[in-house]
Amino acid sequence: MLRTFVLLAAAAALLAAPQTPARRTVSLVVANGTVVTVDPARRVIARGSVAIDGRDIVAVDTADAIATAYRGRDTIDAAGSVVIPGLINTHTHAPMVLFRGLADDLALMDWLQKYIFPAEAKTVSPEFVRVGTRLAALEMIESGTTTYTDMYYFEDEIARETKAAGLRGVLGQTIIQFPVPDAKTPAESLARTERFAREFANDDLITPAVAPHAMYTLDADTLKASRALADRLNIPVIIHLAETADEVKTSQEKYKLSPTAFLESLGFWGPRTIAAHGVHLTPEDIAVLARRHVGVSHNPESNMKLASGTAPVEALRKAGVTVGLGTDGAASNNDLDMFEAMRQAAFLHKLVSGDPRAIPAPVALEMATIEGARVLGLEKTLGSLEPGKRADLLVVSMASARQTPMFDPVSHLVYVTRGDDVRTTIVNGRVLMRDRKVLTLESRQVLADARAMADKVRAAVR
Amino acid sequence: MLRTFVLLAAAAALLAAPQTPARRTVSLVVANGTVVTVDPARRVIARGSVAIDGRDIVAVDTADAIATAYRGRDTIDAAGSVVIPGLINTHTHAPMVLFRGLADDLALMDWLQKYIFPAEAKTVSPEFVRVGTRLAALEMIESGTTTYTDMYYFEDEIARETKAAGLRGVLGQTIIQFPVPDAKTPAESLARTERFAREFANDDLITPAVAPHAMYTLDADTLKASRALADRLNIPVIIHLAETADEVKTSQEKYKLSPTAFLESLGFWGPRTIAAHGVHLTPEDIAVLARRHVGVSHNPESNMKLASGTAPVEALRKAGVTVGLGTDGAASNNDLDMFEAMRQAAFLHKLVSGDPRAIPAPVALEMATIEGARVLGLEKTLGSLEPGKRADLLVVSMASARQTPMFDPVSHLVYVTRGDDVRTTIVNGRVLMRDRKVLTLESRQVLADARAMADKVRAAVR
Repeated sequence: MLRTFVLLAAAAALLAAPQTPARRTVSLVVANGTVVTVDPARRVIARGSVAIDGRDIVAVDTADAIATAYRGRDTIDAAGSVVIPGLINTHTHAPMVLFRGLADDLALMDWLQKYIFPAEAKTVSPEFVRVGTRLAALEMIESGTTTYTDMYYFEDEIARETKAAGLRGVLGQTIIQFPVPDAKTPAESLARTERFAREFANDDLITPAVAPHAMYTLDADTLKASRALADRLNIPVIIHLAETADEVKTSQEKYKLSPTAFLESLGFWGPRTIAAHGVHLTPEDIAVLARRHVGVSHNPESNMKLASGTAPVEALRKAGVTVGLGTDGAASNNDLDMFEAMRQAAFLHKLVSGDPRAIPAPVALEMATIEGARVLGLEKTLGSLEPGKRADLLVVSMASARQTPMFDPVSHLVYVTRGDDVRTTIVNGRVLMRDRKVLTLESRQVLADARAMADKVRAAVR
Repeated sequence: MLRTFVLLAAAAALLAAPQTPARRTVSLVVANGTVVTVDPARRVIARGSVAIDGRDIVAVDTADAIATAYRGRDTIDAAGSVVIPGLINTHTHAPMVLFRGLADDLALMDWLQKYIFPAEAKTVSPEFVRVGTRLAALEMIESGTTTYTDMYYFEDEIARETKAAGLRGVLGQTIIQFPVPDAKTPAESLARTERFAREFANDDLITPAVAPHAMYTLDADTLKASRALADRLNIPVIIHLAETADEVKTSQEKYKLSPTAFLESLGFWGPRTIAAHGVHLTPEDIAVLARRHVGVSHNPESNMKLASGTAPVEALRKAGVTVGLGTDGAASNNDLDMFEAMRQAAFLHKLVSGDPRAIPAPVALEMATIEGARVLGLEKTLGSLEPGKRADLLVVSMASARQTPMFDPVSHLVYVTRGDDVRTTIVNGRVLMRDRKVLTLESRQVLADARAMADKVRAAVR
């Protein structure tokens, strides 16, 4: 009886509103925000909405146009906020959040040999990377990263936690010449990579990758084997490249070639390859990277804090190399906030070039979104708010005193916004954080587990 | 009857606890935090408290020792948080928050001539600086600045708003050669400065100052008159110094001297003088600043964003020049967050020196606290948590994922903390913000007034 009444009432309501054309019901509408699309026209909609159905964006338009055409089963009000594509971190080592601030302000070799290597040798385990990945995922969701690129040990464990948290990841199993926590030999690591890649083949969120650590920590045969495995499995390759002057020196002494040229001589380079850092590059190196369609991950904060140098970002971009942004691991930086990476990229290149027009705010935002997607070979589905792309997006508050007044939303995103201003994070159409409440992780437990694991780290370096 | 019972109950309670020695009642205890004192011994108390009576700190000790000796009429629990001295911003132009993000990524002259100068000419008024100062004060209280150094127009209006908000300020009335919103001539500005200085003589929060803008915007007579006024009134002097290569060029062309040497030739330098920026300095300039006990305000974010260059901070410190940190005005930076200034100082000098040990976290924190106090000549009363000093302090949360785990509170303050992590801000013993609620300003009205004023700014540059 009640059910009949409800049905009749619904029918009456439909009949009573004949002026409204039939609206398509979708899973979610993010409504009434300033929508910064980063689409090819770089459209900014002053009062816009995004209609999402399932995992995909179905429409991006003025709030009125979306309200006329779509009805969301769920609606998130973004009035007074800015709606942007989710940020794409093109280089990190997620579980290293458990080492953040363990040892700062040291010469590189002291830092590695007295702290990071001993801590890793004694603590890194499947449980360590699970606890660390959950902490990193919590931080990334809270600060607006929706896709991240990783390189660490036990990458299959990282993938499972990443997927459970609802984040998207291009996750690289590390290959390295010496014994490490998850493999005694590079051959073991390569075998581990293959198992990992098969487990997550065609996964909607996880893209497995092979991550030969660097040209100075691997011999030529293992570098070639890594490339061959990637080609055979059709997965991306992640490698550190020319991060420090020491790496270049080592390469020159050993091979009489720059790191880039040495890897070129092995036939290592190819598309869907992500080179992290790219600090010390010659014009010839840049030409190789452009010709081979290698993407570069620029990590301004890590490069500054570790005094590695300044990547030639403007020269790379001018040569046609795609450059995204990364935070690097939190042992180097010490956080995973991509808003800081954007601001730092803008600041750094103005300083070094002596030109305040270098890396303007719109370029910094592109590097953290659509260019990052391009670095990962995922620009067809990620990096901008466009119909048909995956629904990875953020609602970012602009209400603080620090953000008042607002003349230009893109300037504000780069120059005065922090990760903490992100209110809502959506990946693949799923709301991972809503109004600062993370829905896919038990925050309190994640933090408690991390603190307990930190006690083991402390003991390891004592 | 009830009152008698309460008195009897209180007496009984006192008698029932004879084992407790008499505790001194004080106005406020900030209890159970990790106390980073920045005192001469750089003491960090893992679980400590600060006892405050009236405007002063009376004791800084372990939580147990304070609990035994003091009873606070009010108590703020800082468990799980870090307690630090309030941050000291040694250079800003507070009302310019109303221009933040108005025009970024431009060549300096375009920025000034197309945007900032027209906007200032058409909008700066007593009402403008009041609205802007309230917005800046809100942002500073929210981000942990307790003392700031200003240089702008209508500085008496700024002083009144600063005092009403409860902040401490060293506030410099601008002197400039050409007509400006608050004076047609430098003589008018000097007269205004004298009235302002007399109004706030011996004020507990406001230190009036004279602020000759720069050597390139003033003639020799006005520079000398500014110094003479400061000496007569016994007030500090604030000046921009060697911010850009252009300033040095102008000085060399006009006087065949560096800006520092030109000012030295006028007898301009002396103690209680704050030189903002100090980017382009020769070793001889540095020797002059050291000999004259001039304090330098280093503004790493502004210098990077405007591509001004890198101040020789390590050389200045080595020569014995005191160096504090500043944000510069929000038209340049674009915010007033001193945590960002600390991080940026650490990052910038590591990069430029090529040494990851440059400006380590403890030095960045010192520059934002005790060294900042020294730059202002206020180190006897400000800049560290010590008995007898003014109670200017912060409770800073360390609970976020981004700050987990914590191995070293000083590293975390510099490398992963934002102004928004400040929970409680206390100036002169008065709680200005408690658990993120600002008590001395009507936040909503302050933001609404700022947005309304921004409409006038938009119209001015259209």
